[in-house]
Amino acid sequence: MELYLIRHGIAQERTANIKDEERVLTKEGRQKTEKISQRLVNLGLHFDLIVTSSLARARQTAEILSAAGLSSQIEESHHLTPDGNIDNWVKQWLEPRNYAPNTRLAVVGHEPNLSQWAEILLWGEVKAGLVLKKAGMIGIKLPEIGSPLGCSQMFWLTQPKYLL
Amino acid sequence: MELYLIRHGIAQERTANIKDEERVLTKEGRQKTEKISQRLVNLGLHFDLIVTSSLARARQTAEILSAAGLSSQIEESHHLTPDGNIDNWVKQWLEPRNYAPNTRLAVVGHEPNLSQWAEILLWGEVKAGLVLKKAGMIGIKLPEIGSPLGCSQMFWLTQPKYLL
Repeated sequence: MELYLIRHGIAQERTANIKDEERVLTKEGRQKTEKISQRLVNLGLHFDLIVTSSLARARQTAEILSAAGLSSQIEESHHLTPDGNIDNWVKQWLEPRNYAPNTRLAVVGHEPNLSQWAEILLWGEVKAGLVLKKAGMIGIKLPEIGSPLGCSQMFWLTQPKYLL
Repeated sequence: MELYLIRHGIAQERTANIKDEERVLTKEGRQKTEKISQRLVNLGLHFDLIVTSSLARARQTAEILSAAGLSSQIEESHHLTPDGNIDNWVKQWLEPRNYAPNTRLAVVGHEPNLSQWAEILLWGEVKAGLVLKKAGMIGIKLPEIGSPLGCSQMFWLTQPKYLL
């Protein structure tokens, strides 16, 4: 099973007038995310499911990925918001589900969560050794049996500029 | 300063009739490495120096990268052969040299060395958490001061298929 951790695209800046959870993608953020989605389609990628943070900038990113044809299934998870933690996420989304061996699951969320979660999956702890830019992606292969924490392998880490 | 760890392309199989250090790239290995080199040029990449393992399959890979225009400088290092170790390599190639801050150094070598060295640079230890296919690449940002071991950051890990 493969997990694709995708950071949301470029969003509106934080201001006093707008709630963090309502910040949406900028025009540049939407266009770049659309181009990247198209490139992923051209590479032959398809997700069985996209799980997204419920914040607007992540939801919009997931919708763009879906509209490009990368997946017809989107679900929201509050464990993917900036204050989420990987243990709760794994308990709700990985452990109880009987995914087929070749399932590809995309997760759309925020930094520093995603790069830290990747480190926990690969190495069991956080060292801030990974750089994940907006609309960038990390590809991780989960072990067939047992906990994925500390036992997974990374096969892809890309910034958007390498996909455009 | 950025370090690009590049695994050699697809080479001849091991047989009793050919020494390991003399195995050369197959036709497919050369063609794929040429295509990848061209894609890296198109992405705007350029290396100040390519340091390569002295084994034929690595040297050939370095020559293809250079011929595509990625660097005019190639040097060989016996610390990059399969029995090399990162401490010796860092002592000879990083510590005594006064690289400019934006230097991009490419290193052409073998597995499992390269993915293990990346882990040591990021993490300080090896956990076998990275997958690096033939002609794949890992991009690492080294800290401006101090030892890079355990203090570097990865910004790119790609398999060749994502560059073609």
